Amino acid sequence: MAESETPNRSPEIRKDRINNRWVLFSPARSRRPSDFKAKSNPQPNNQTECPFCAGHEHECAPEIFRIPADSTNDWKIRVIQNLYPAVSRELDFRNSVSVIGDVAVSGFGFHDVVIESPIHSVNLSDLPPVEVGEVLLAVKKRIEQLRNCESIKYVQVFKNHGASAGASMSHSHSQMIALPIVPPTVSARLDSKKEYYKQTGKCYLCDIQPNELLIDESAHFISLVPFAATFAFEIWIIPRDHSSHFHEIDSEKAINLGGLLKLMLLKMSLQLNNPPFNLLIHTSPFQDDPSDAPSTHWFLQIAPHLSGVGGFEIATGCYINPVFPEDAARILRDVKIS
Amino acid sequence: MAESETPNRSPEIRKDRINNRWVLFSPARSRRPSDFKAKSNPQPNNQTECPFCAGHEHECAPEIFRIPADSTNDWKIRVIQNLYPAVSRELDFRNSVSVIGDVAVSGFGFHDVVIESPIHSVNLSDLPPVEVGEVLLAVKKRIEQLRNCESIKYVQVFKNHGASAGASMSHSHSQMIALPIVPPTVSARLDSKKEYYKQTGKCYLCDIQPNELLIDESAHFISLVPFAATFAFEIWIIPRDHSSHFHEIDSEKAINLGGLLKLMLLKMSLQLNNPPFNLLIHTSPFQDDPSDAPSTHWFLQIAPHLSGVGGFEIATGCYINPVFPEDAARILRDVKIS
Ligand SMILES: Nc1ncnc2c1ncn2[C@@H]1O[C@H](COP(=O)(O)OP(=O)(O)O[C@H]2O[C@H](CO)[C@@H](O)[C@H](O)[C@H]2O)[C@@H](O)[C@H]1O
Ligand SMILES: Nc1ncnc2c1ncn2[C@@H]1O[C@H](COP(=O)(O)OP(=O)(O)O[C@H]2O[C@H](CO)[C@@H](O)[C@H](O)[C@H]2O)[C@@H](O)[C@H]1O
Repeated sequence: MAESETPNRSPEIRKDRINNRWVLFSPARSRRPSDFKAKSNPQPNNQTECPFCAGHEHECAPEIFRIPADSTNDWKIRVIQNLYPAVSRELDFRNSVSVIGDVAVSGFGFHDVVIESPIHSVNLSDLPPVEVGEVLLAVKKRIEQLRNCESIKYVQVFKNHGASAGASMSHSHSQMIALPIVPPTVSARLDSKKEYYKQTGKCYLCDIQPNELLIDESAHFISLVPFAATFAFEIWIIPRDHSSHFHEIDSEKAINLGGLLKLMLLKMSLQLNNPPFNLLIHTSPFQDDPSDAPSTHWFLQIAPHLSGVGGFEIATGCYINPVFPEDAARILRDVKIS
Repeated sequence: MAESETPNRSPEIRKDRINNRWVLFSPARSRRPSDFKAKSNPQPNNQTECPFCAGHEHECAPEIFRIPADSTNDWKIRVIQNLYPAVSRELDFRNSVSVIGDVAVSGFGFHDVVIESPIHSVNLSDLPPVEVGEVLLAVKKRIEQLRNCESIKYVQVFKNHGASAGASMSHSHSQMIALPIVPPTVSARLDSKKEYYKQTGKCYLCDIQPNELLIDESAHFISLVPFAATFAFEIWIIPRDHSSHFHEIDSEKAINLGGLLKLMLLKMSLQLNNPPFNLLIHTSPFQDDPSDAPSTHWFLQIAPHLSGVGGFEIATGCYINPVFPEDAARILRDVKIS
């Protein structure tokens, strides 16, 4: 079906059950004019200035490990410290300064960068499925190291691609921030999933019936557009088997995920003309409440940024999405990767 | 104290008690390099194409009212329907399609635009305090109309200034979206304030001791940088007297607020070189739980956008702010408006 055949739909407000918030679906919004000039598509500087490129390792903050471990100039992946960390590995974790009034703790934590290729112009989706899998396994390995630090409660893995998705460096990389607190959206997600489990006796993500929202599937994963997608053409990749933590993934599944992730990134890039996007791993805190285990299920989110957010989203936590998930899923299903 | 004298601070994680989330303060972040070219500062098109300008009223969606009411070409403020509404005033409000599985309601609601001046190049902060007050009173009037619609639970008033704060139109305006649901951040805020009240017997905003966070004050309002500011140089304006709803404001207070708001916008603009920003009115839902009244207190938030957000903020709901609120308040206090 061509894009022009997309059915005419009335605005709808859908509950995002996982994040416990509402999304406004309003196709009319996509026709808004703008009197600001088209956003520039900033071009990165010359690769010779990039500290993430092979040969520039000395310009980076200390390395944590590389893949393969014994490689020299021929490394494939490097996990390094972030030179401008949001949290500091050097601070002591101390208690709150106040429990009734204002509350602050020291900014203890780990902030790392995963350099996904030695070559400046290679994107994650350019790598063969096995190598995408190796990047995922490097992330798993680093999470397992961070787990040994008692004060760390949660690790957020995220990728910023493109300046409007927040990237300041264009060389393909992801970041990991290990925090001494459980972030609010993570707790909210745990609560929502627990609530669904209480009501139905099932895990929300195990129970999902994608139907017309399905994009594709592999041996161990399915990919779909969520029912109440926050962003237009948002994609989730969900493991078929129930599993609370991303770091439980094994090599076979990581390579299988690598293939499906690559395919989704390619479809998105082809359909939406290499948009800025975030790739997020939503996993569970380390010290899980054991009663959470049956309801928590990790997943990947790909969030393309086709339009910015404005004051409404910041104020309310409600998002406005001009594209109905059923339409986005159909369009992405139909993208042919040669 | 010059900017170079800003004390060296260690990273700190502060609890935003109102939004019940954490903010990472990390001064090191402000030194990050970027290999994306500087963000362009998009210039708006010629004013002759702008439907919000005087003489172009026929290019707009229907008018709701104007100020003064009996004016013709010499109007000062127009409140109009949004031509590309996120919600539709024409739909029936019907119940959820499902209560256990996925939930959707029809996208009923009102989406209006407040044109703050007939002249294209005039910003809100260019208006004299009395006229800023008149814009606030026009917003109050429209909220009171929307209150008569039984299905409407909450009205979000917001302003996007500058393309990176979401603005698609450069002519000075604000927007109002009236929703059949209470948005998640609004409920979360009510809950946090209620919790503080339970613990202390006081309203959080009545109880605030700004001290080194204070920027300025007027007869009826104070302005400060919040202890756990989400954005660098974020400003809150809080009424001194306890009041749950913005629309309870009277003319005298609106003009007094107009003066302080103008001053804060000018200081921000001068210090930060006319940054993109959002201005948000945080008020309470219409059908308040009476037990909420002692703990809910409306306020204004000015959120400058000096850096974008990335995957970390989207995934976790935690924000990273490179500027400590004490430093931001001191710098803003010291800005002299001639
Ligand atoms: N030589 C070097 N050695 C080691 N590390 C180096 C380095 N040079 C640069 N870096 C680090 O590399 C990282 C590159 O990260 P990204 O491009 O994904 O976005 P960044 O973290 O800058 O900010 C985006 O993501 C964050 C988190 O979502 C948002 O707060 C922010 O607004 C958004 O722009 C930076 O964090 C930087 O500190
Ligand atoms: N002739 C006309 N008559 C009446 N109305 C007209 C009109 N021409 C344009 N409009 C309306 O005027 C409004 C101008 O609003 P803004 O510039 O504040 O941002 P916009 O709503 O486009 O999107 C920003 O804010 C929203 C909400 O925060 C975000 O979803 C989005 O990503 C961000 O870009 C638009 O909503 C548009 O529909």
